Amino acid sequence: MQVGFVGLGNMGRPIVQNLLRAGVPVSVYNRTRAKADGLEGALTVASSPDEVAAGADVVMTMLADDRAVEQVVFGEDAQPGLLAALPKGAVHVSCSTISVALSRRLAAAHAAAGQDYVAAPVFGRPEAARAQALWVVAGGAPDVLDRCAPLFDAIGQGTFRVGDDPATANAVKLAGNFTIAAMLETLGEAFAFVRKSGVPPALFLQILNGALYRSPIYGNYGQLIADGHFEPAGFALRLGLKDVRLALDAAEAVAAPMPLGSLLHDHLLAQVACGRGSADWSAIAEVSARNAGL
Amino acid sequence: MQVGFVGLGNMGRPIVQNLLRAGVPVSVYNRTRAKADGLEGALTVASSPDEVAAGADVVMTMLADDRAVEQVVFGEDAQPGLLAALPKGAVHVSCSTISVALSRRLAAAHAAAGQDYVAAPVFGRPEAARAQALWVVAGGAPDVLDRCAPLFDAIGQGTFRVGDDPATANAVKLAGNFTIAAMLETLGEAFAFVRKSGVPPALFLQILNGALYRSPIYGNYGQLIADGHFEPAGFALRLGLKDVRLALDAAEAVAAPMPLGSLLHDHLLAQVACGRGSADWSAIAEVSARNAGL
Amino acid sequence: MQVGFVGLGNMGRPIVQNLLRAGVPVSVYNRTRAKADGLEGALTVASSPDEVAAGADVVMTMLADDRAVEQVVFGEDAQPGLLAALPKGAVHVSCSTISVALSRRLAAAHAAAGQDYVAAPVFGRPEAARAQALWVVAGGAPDVLDRCAPLFDAIGQGTFRVGDDPATANAVKLAGNFTIAAMLETLGEAFAFVRKSGVPPALFLQILNGALYRSPIYGNYGQLIADGHFEPAGFALRLGLKDVRLALDAAEAVAAPMPLGSLLHDHLLAQVACGRGSADWSAIAEVSARNAGL
Amino acid sequence: MQVGFVGLGNMGRPIVQNLLRAGVPVSVYNRTRAKADGLEGALTVASSPDEVAAGADVVMTMLADDRAVEQVVFGEDAQPGLLAALPKGAVHVSCSTISVALSRRLAAAHAAAGQDYVAAPVFGRPEAARAQALWVVAGGAPDVLDRCAPLFDAIGQGTFRVGDDPATANAVKLAGNFTIAAMLETLGEAFAFVRKSGVPPALFLQILNGALYRSPIYGNYGQLIADGHFEPAGFALRLGLKDVRLALDAAEAVAAPMPLGSLLHDHLLAQVACGRGSADWSAIAEVSARNAGL
Repeated sequence: MQVGFVGLGNMGRPIVQNLLRAGVPVSVYNRTRAKADGLEGALTVASSPDEVAAGADVVMTMLADDRAVEQVVFGEDAQPGLLAALPKGAVHVSCSTISVALSRRLAAAHAAAGQDYVAAPVFGRPEAARAQALWVVAGGAPDVLDRCAPLFDAIGQGTFRVGDDPATANAVKLAGNFTIAAMLETLGEAFAFVRKSGVPPALFLQILNGALYRSPIYGNYGQLIADGHFEPAGFALRLGLKDVRLALDAAEAVAAPMPLGSLLHDHLLAQVACGRGSADWSAIAEVSARNAGL
Repeated sequence: MQVGFVGLGNMGRPIVQNLLRAGVPVSVYNRTRAKADGLEGALTVASSPDEVAAGADVVMTMLADDRAVEQVVFGEDAQPGLLAALPKGAVHVSCSTISVALSRRLAAAHAAAGQDYVAAPVFGRPEAARAQALWVVAGGAPDVLDRCAPLFDAIGQGTFRVGDDPATANAVKLAGNFTIAAMLETLGEAFAFVRKSGVPPALFLQILNGALYRSPIYGNYGQLIADGHFEPAGFALRLGLKDVRLALDAAEAVAAPMPLGSLLHDHLLAQVACGRGSADWSAIAEVSARNAGL
Repeated sequence: MQVGFVGLGNMGRPIVQNLLRAGVPVSVYNRTRAKADGLEGALTVASSPDEVAAGADVVMTMLADDRAVEQVVFGEDAQPGLLAALPKGAVHVSCSTISVALSRRLAAAHAAAGQDYVAAPVFGRPEAARAQALWVVAGGAPDVLDRCAPLFDAIGQGTFRVGDDPATANAVKLAGNFTIAAMLETLGEAFAFVRKSGVPPALFLQILNGALYRSPIYGNYGQLIADGHFEPAGFALRLGLKDVRLALDAAEAVAAPMPLGSLLHDHLLAQVACGRGSADWSAIAEVSARNAGL
Repeated sequence: MQVGFVGLGNMGRPIVQNLLRAGVPVSVYNRTRAKADGLEGALTVASSPDEVAAGADVVMTMLADDRAVEQVVFGEDAQPGLLAALPKGAVHVSCSTISVALSRRLAAAHAAAGQDYVAAPVFGRPEAARAQALWVVAGGAPDVLDRCAPLFDAIGQGTFRVGDDPATANAVKLAGNFTIAAMLETLGEAFAFVRKSGVPPALFLQILNGALYRSPIYGNYGQLIADGHFEPAGFALRLGLKDVRLALDAAEAVAAPMPLGSLLHDHLLAQVACGRGSADWSAIAEVSARNAGL
């Protein structure tokens, strides 16, 4: 199987390394070519998205946002994109956290070009990507997902198939990120309240996660908030705002009001307005602290 | 050690059974006397709170709300309460989920009477109480907590000491319950969104808890919401509203705004207004479903 | 008609002056006796609430909050209150902005004592009180309201009768104050948005009130916000918080969720936490400005 | 002066009639040509936007939304738009309530084509348009606004100039509509509260507007809500949702969180989800009533 890959950021690079480790030959493209340095295995470095796509069975993309995906797929200026070069019957596997609307547009465009399209966003941070421990949320036609299964196995610890409509996978990813932001806000408000009541946040966290949640994600994020340790960002607040925005847009499109989502949006936006867009998104907790006069 | 216990409800009864099992002689009082039937061990059944308190080293109370605790402690009509009968130097251990304000009043009243006071609310449902698996959150003077330690060991799997001021324990308990209500709202909004996007809620829950939280509490409550299974109530929505109300009151007293707490309050209150106060508090998810036209 | 009056604050004093001007003999009580200096007419200065009540046909009270009204009506320590001294068949007219719950308690207590009770909160600031331009919102039995009508005419420009149940008048007053706080929040958010969009707030206000509202209250409060002129307070933010709190309590008691009320509460509380409780309540607009990084 | 006009809806048609009445010759285009029937004066009916633009000094557009304006200005399929046909130095006056982002795009496109661009959204309903009583909010270069002044005088009772940047006028219009939606939500919550407290909404409105606001807009909308009279729509709820959405988008772009805006959005969206998108936007009040169990 000929595999192409576009996007060698914090997530893309370790994913490619795992594909190579599994013996898959990969042709990669990244705007900054040097990001491919040091990858070991059957690697080719291409100089454009369409070069990656030409002759590929599968092209995976892992990019920052809708705009980057649009450029790579539809091309820009004189530069053609994936869509123009991908062979008929080949698959585009989009791993980026993008809007449901763009995912639908991609599905339609690839179908019109006789190509297949799968949305396969992942849960997991860069460490999980390195450890081959991502969770893949895959949407698309069952037979196309079957063809991609070996790739998903090479990069993650498990795959969830959520529907024949690829965009369902994007909705699930956005809903999942919404719940994390909600947890962060919850912790922020609870910590501000107990701090002003005279209880150390680290002790409260110990109780909360020891007696109630027993969840690593509560433990890790709770620790960041208890310590007020928001730099360097594991996931930048401004990207968290983008994801909550995309969840709200997708929810509006299906007429599902999410007032807690709106609250998260407004607090994340306040942090951006106050110059905290580059902090970790757990810094949403600073809003509760500030409003409590802490 | 002579131990008295007031309140043999869903939580109090299994707690008393575990005290008896640990060899502690217990004198109990409950408004409905028959609730003591079948308890095995060195049990005495008293006919009033002050009878329980007379001669006791420790009296524990596990009651429904502020009003019930006030009646038992301060007495009512002709009936004297705990406060009048408890020996000097004896301890009142209040396990109920009550307001921070009442806990402060109790601390002051017992101190004035030469008695000790400990707030020791617990995390855990009736099953956990039966299994000696509660978590005790204890606030009070260290030497008084030392004296109570064998009792806490007899009823729970662990004790967290949160401060010399007893009321800190009540704040922690209320903050903890706030986070659970926040989790329920989060799941309610996320499920409404994914359902309208064409994803079955049970599948979404599997992903959410499998890939992200790995937390029993997410699993259990998530299942109730995914199944729309809100009766019989494990914890009645109207009691959840009461606890969120108490958290907001305590937070207002220390000037810590909790906008997510306010959102929870308003949704729980809407459910009460719509006749759903007796359902499980996870039925807060019905608000999101209803507002999405589901 | 013998009239007693308790409470010579910013509102009470000009009200008494207007009663005197209308030829009504008034016996007044105020904690700080000197507040009665300079009042002209058939005035007696009493030295306790019960002295004011003894022999009166009507006693009006205009006090700061629930606690002050409770002290004056029910007495405190050795000091008896209005309730003990008011003749059978006489009326207590409560003009203060108090809770619906206390108003109900007062109604019951006066009825039990064979006295009449009317709730008659007013709309209008001290200037309006001086100008005999208050609006009286009166709740109580029609024949009792008839007896009080000449007093209401002496102090206001009009009276609205809202129901036989006195507490309905308190609900109306709290609902009215809620709408003003809502207007202030609305202006705060709109001004932050247009300021960051490059439009001067004073110009925006001119358009808003010129083209849409044509309402003096929008003009006056809008000007304060446009100018950032929050001191001295016309109405202190901490009192605004109290009123919103009372509205939310009354709404909870009848199971009517008010999410905008909750938002106002949280923003006013944040201002109190940030040391702005003594500013005018229009300073709620500072929350929107701060969250926009202004 | 040669004037073109595109869009003969509820607002556009009476505006054109007033231009004709003022002696201005107008060439109009509307998708449904019959909408021009009955207009009296120096009227020409064109069959495309570019025909209206050819030879015009000013072209005004009054259309439903961003999409309609994009089609008319940039053309669609084979059909050229205004932009292609408008002479150099001529002005496009956009009166529609559109996004700040599109207004910026229009400004740039017209500038690039050597044309002028003015944003001139209006406040007022169709009755006001008929009565020549609109308020025009105009943004653009002063000399260009000078040239348009006679047209604004012909259609409205006054013009506010808000800035050289045309998009400021769109921000003001959106902020204004936000305040109206906020007023509707305020009334909805207040009415639900007083109704459950036993006060008739019509009486409450009489007090609120008589004693506090004295504003026709409170009177008119309040009456609709008090009567539950939401059909036929003066302004459809789904359009209100669109405008609140545009306000939130514009506010996000300048990093100004609007939590009350978010609340309005969520309640309007809930109404759309419940099949009420065609009702008048004052039907947002039904959300508060429903959540109060009314």
